[in-house]
Amino acid sequence: MSQPIQTVSIRVQPAYEASIGPGLLDECGPRLRCLLGPCRAVVISDTTVSALYLPRVQQSLEQAGFTVSAWAFPAGERQKNLLTLSAALEFLAREALTRSDCVVALGGGVVGDLAGFTAGCYLRGIPYVQLPTTLLAAVDSSVGGKTGVDLTAGKNLAGLFVQPAAMLFDTDCLTTLPPAVIADGASEAVKTGVLAGGPLWTLLEQDGLTVDPAGVIARCVAYKAGIVERDPREAGERKLLNLGHTVGHAIERCSDYTIPHGHAVAAGLAIIARAAEALGWTAEPVAARITAALERHSLPVGTEYAPRELARAAVSDKKRRGSEITLAVPRSFGGCILKTLPLSDLESVIAAGWEVF
Amino acid sequence: MSQPIQTVSIRVQPAYEASIGPGLLDECGPRLRCLLGPCRAVVISDTTVSALYLPRVQQSLEQAGFTVSAWAFPAGERQKNLLTLSAALEFLAREALTRSDCVVALGGGVVGDLAGFTAGCYLRGIPYVQLPTTLLAAVDSSVGGKTGVDLTAGKNLAGLFVQPAAMLFDTDCLTTLPPAVIADGASEAVKTGVLAGGPLWTLLEQDGLTVDPAGVIARCVAYKAGIVERDPREAGERKLLNLGHTVGHAIERCSDYTIPHGHAVAAGLAIIARAAEALGWTAEPVAARITAALERHSLPVGTEYAPRELARAAVSDKKRRGSEITLAVPRSFGGCILKTLPLSDLESVIAAGWEVF
Repeated sequence: MSQPIQTVSIRVQPAYEASIGPGLLDECGPRLRCLLGPCRAVVISDTTVSALYLPRVQQSLEQAGFTVSAWAFPAGERQKNLLTLSAALEFLAREALTRSDCVVALGGGVVGDLAGFTAGCYLRGIPYVQLPTTLLAAVDSSVGGKTGVDLTAGKNLAGLFVQPAAMLFDTDCLTTLPPAVIADGASEAVKTGVLAGGPLWTLLEQDGLTVDPAGVIARCVAYKAGIVERDPREAGERKLLNLGHTVGHAIERCSDYTIPHGHAVAAGLAIIARAAEALGWTAEPVAARITAALERHSLPVGTEYAPRELARAAVSDKKRRGSEITLAVPRSFGGCILKTLPLSDLESVIAAGWEVF
Repeated sequence: MSQPIQTVSIRVQPAYEASIGPGLLDECGPRLRCLLGPCRAVVISDTTVSALYLPRVQQSLEQAGFTVSAWAFPAGERQKNLLTLSAALEFLAREALTRSDCVVALGGGVVGDLAGFTAGCYLRGIPYVQLPTTLLAAVDSSVGGKTGVDLTAGKNLAGLFVQPAAMLFDTDCLTTLPPAVIADGASEAVKTGVLAGGPLWTLLEQDGLTVDPAGVIARCVAYKAGIVERDPREAGERKLLNLGHTVGHAIERCSDYTIPHGHAVAAGLAIIARAAEALGWTAEPVAARITAALERHSLPVGTEYAPRELARAAVSDKKRRGSEITLAVPRSFGGCILKTLPLSDLESVIAAGWEVF
């Protein structure tokens, strides 16, 4: 029995559709043809992903009338820098791509961030399409228009808010991902479930992600889309999406980025949930259910780094200035809030929810 | 007698004001304070301009409560590249600038293009302000939101459409500019006069630019603003601003960019005006009046490069593909049109208006 394709309309400027379901890599050509006409397409990917999927994507695009060329950079977060951006831009220029042509981002979060930034500034912006290949990219990074690269001084310090023309996630990719990479994406899905509450949270407390991955991913995308539509540039409400990320980013930094993003966010989410409960900031018990959901998805719920280290790492974030910090707090399922605290309180908040892992 | 400050509202997204008049460099602090609050400001400049003007700008900003730091790169178009962008971004990151802070672009077109691009992608976009110091930048490049750098494959191939928070042009800068640099800017003013017709064209046929520079510059800015408001991303009408630029860019390319932009555009404008008249595309005699206005501003009205060379250089433009070319044609003063031709006709069009210089 063939499963349906789920679509979510993302009403940003300009609006676009996210499609999630099996077989989409082989169908990307005709689907993109409707949007972008027969034009030149440069598929940007990394060497790992391009070995796995590029031939199918290229064939589908070419059969639909696109003229395709491909450019891949070595896999890994360390490549998400201005040198790689520069090389990608020069490739587009050598291929003489015009504003009527497009970039196809085929890969995980690093590829999507880099390819989106490249497309967003080549000729001052040409269309691009997200073809995420990991669960993390599907539920999180490929929606919302955040693109960018790391600078020497820190992660994601240069980039653009620039929306893709379409997002297509082929759920068949999930079968090729190692369990740890699936877990990494499940973490952002659980976070989204806490924010959304209702049926999405129920699905994530149970086996929803295994039983109906397309359904759960589509709900995650729809929830994030709603927030991004109301606050595309993260002026307010969108900061809720940082639930678990203040401590999560600190864990990543303390580990020198050897702990993957989703795993760090899971521990950060568990810590802030326990802290919120201990400090009386919650309206219902949340911590035990959140940690149970994280553990069900093989994710950590604590960290080896001490509260003082974490607080120090969080404060040194180059994006932060001034004497206050805004935390997303899980008051209830579907009822998270933003809470602004003096920076000096951060260590004691972390300590209130800290557990070793 | 102190001259008034001319102000033009530019109703793009988001809207901003251009102010033109004497003394504005010394007044930039209080004027920007109203817009941006007391925040950190990084002044991006080149070494030539920063030696001339940075101390006054810095003093004015600091007296108004801004915390100022400055970063300058070696003067010259060759520095408008991704390496300079990268160095500027790393500087902002080391200074820990946040989205509440701002970049001030102090200089000519190269500085404005580079600083605008830097601000537009640092932290996915922070506010920036244009303080042009040349006539060319004042009448043209500092309005309209085009920013960017050159790639190996060609000029301005990477960048952003990103609007500044304000533009302030201190007309006292004009007194320090060499005559050839004034002429370079006058070329874009004459071009704008042809497009606008009416009083602006009359001022440019006479001594308007000498007698009332602020008035003429403000009219040029207001005319360009109207076009940019209607077509911010150059989908149609904005292409009219390329009047004289198809041949002008070809002349720049043939000279390996030793002929300055404004001088090349002047020759391009004269050639297309004579060609349009010779080919019966005009509704009134335009060529003699356009060449007279250009010569009055010490600008060339012909070129040493042959029509065949120019056509070849124009066709090799990396931004162009396909078999057609769209030319802005001076049908009458205030009545220019876009005309799309087969690429193969370009050489004979150029030949119809060509004169040696």
